[in-house]
Amino acid sequence: MQLHELAGADPARLFSPFCWRARLALATKGFRAETIPWRFTDKAAIAPYGAEKVPVLRDGDRTIHDSWAIAEYLEDTYPDRPSLFGGPGGRELSRFVGTFAEAVVHAGLARMIIADIHAVLAPQDRAYFRATREKRFGMPLEQVQADREKALPAFRQALHPLRMVLRAQAFLGGTAPLYADAIIFGAFQWARCTSPFRLLAEDDPLEAWRQRMLDLHGGMARHVPAFD
Amino acid sequence: MQLHELAGADPARLFSPFCWRARLALATKGFRAETIPWRFTDKAAIAPYGAEKVPVLRDGDRTIHDSWAIAEYLEDTYPDRPSLFGGPGGRELSRFVGTFAEAVVHAGLARMIIADIHAVLAPQDRAYFRATREKRFGMPLEQVQADREKALPAFRQALHPLRMVLRAQAFLGGTAPLYADAIIFGAFQWARCTSPFRLLAEDDPLEAWRQRMLDLHGGMARHVPAFD
Repeated sequence: MQLHELAGADPARLFSPFCWRARLALATKGFRAETIPWRFTDKAAIAPYGAEKVPVLRDGDRTIHDSWAIAEYLEDTYPDRPSLFGGPGGRELSRFVGTFAEAVVHAGLARMIIADIHAVLAPQDRAYFRATREKRFGMPLEQVQADREKALPAFRQALHPLRMVLRAQAFLGGTAPLYADAIIFGAFQWARCTSPFRLLAEDDPLEAWRQRMLDLHGGMARHVPAFD
Repeated sequence: MQLHELAGADPARLFSPFCWRARLALATKGFRAETIPWRFTDKAAIAPYGAEKVPVLRDGDRTIHDSWAIAEYLEDTYPDRPSLFGGPGGRELSRFVGTFAEAVVHAGLARMIIADIHAVLAPQDRAYFRATREKRFGMPLEQVQADREKALPAFRQALHPLRMVLRAQAFLGGTAPLYADAIIFGAFQWARCTSPFRLLAEDDPLEAWRQRMLDLHGGMARHVPAFD
């Protein structure tokens, strides 16, 4: 298998939250795909697969893009390997975990690390990234994250529903992680790989969970270029 | 079966969000329990069961209290009836739906309807309710909800992760509801049974979902004393 993944200037700096979801889904299923580093401006490299963004998974002669489609593909194609969803209800409720990740975790995170992300990008990606993101935020990237210390308490508060679960059990999936854990973890890995800014307090149950996620699959997510 | 449920001055006004979870869980399993109306100050009525709050379910000689324990009991005791969780993953992720309901939906709702709740209570419950809730909020109940029009936009925004799912599918559980839907719906039913304050915009996908929930089980949740 091959996985097209977003990389920074350093091709080993794989920082996309959605690519981390795919990586962890593959690892749960016992696969380790070959990484093909991709940059935002490499549209031509994945256009033949009908994709505009990564992750793009190639499994033999099949190509799947979009992290959710990849998770469903792996679950349906390899049902005898460890489950990503723990049954049909878990699959459905993983969608809600995904919308929470996007609306709360990603949105809250992005405005605290957006200039840091820019700083680790490949040179050819920087103008594209700055132009599209500054249009979205309506101000320079440096200004977006300038008051991040002030934004941090509200971000931590917004994570409280996750914290309430994770102070009572090891993973969102219970005693073992499910794809839902990968969905949330991807966001924190995105930050870890791009920014030195510390998001979680040391005594936060979410931080203990993040460390457990970093330990999975032989420390796969820990042993990459990152800031902590 | 018998279900001890919180009621207002009108014994038919069953307004507890947690009791609604239990009612809907019972209905999903094809049971309709006899309601035994309970008031906050009726501590003695449920003390013999080791409970301090409702819902309390009596099933033959077994007694189960706490809405989550009731859901798990029903799922494990009646596994051949329609599932509340859709498998082990759905059960685990229902916990996160529950913490989201508590930290975001209940907390956001309570401060907009707390004086309205007081107004529908049985006379003997009012002093208890006012004293405990005013201690929690640090101000008179009427003052807590006085600026609710101003609080409404942030509340609606906080529901966005639910909205993102429910504009793409009929229920959190997919094409059919799961217990996760009951968890969130219970909060809206709590408001509907106690307050005329309109929480959702008419064109909100969450409002369409709420109407679908009100239609379930022959309109069980619709045909009760309520404000809309």
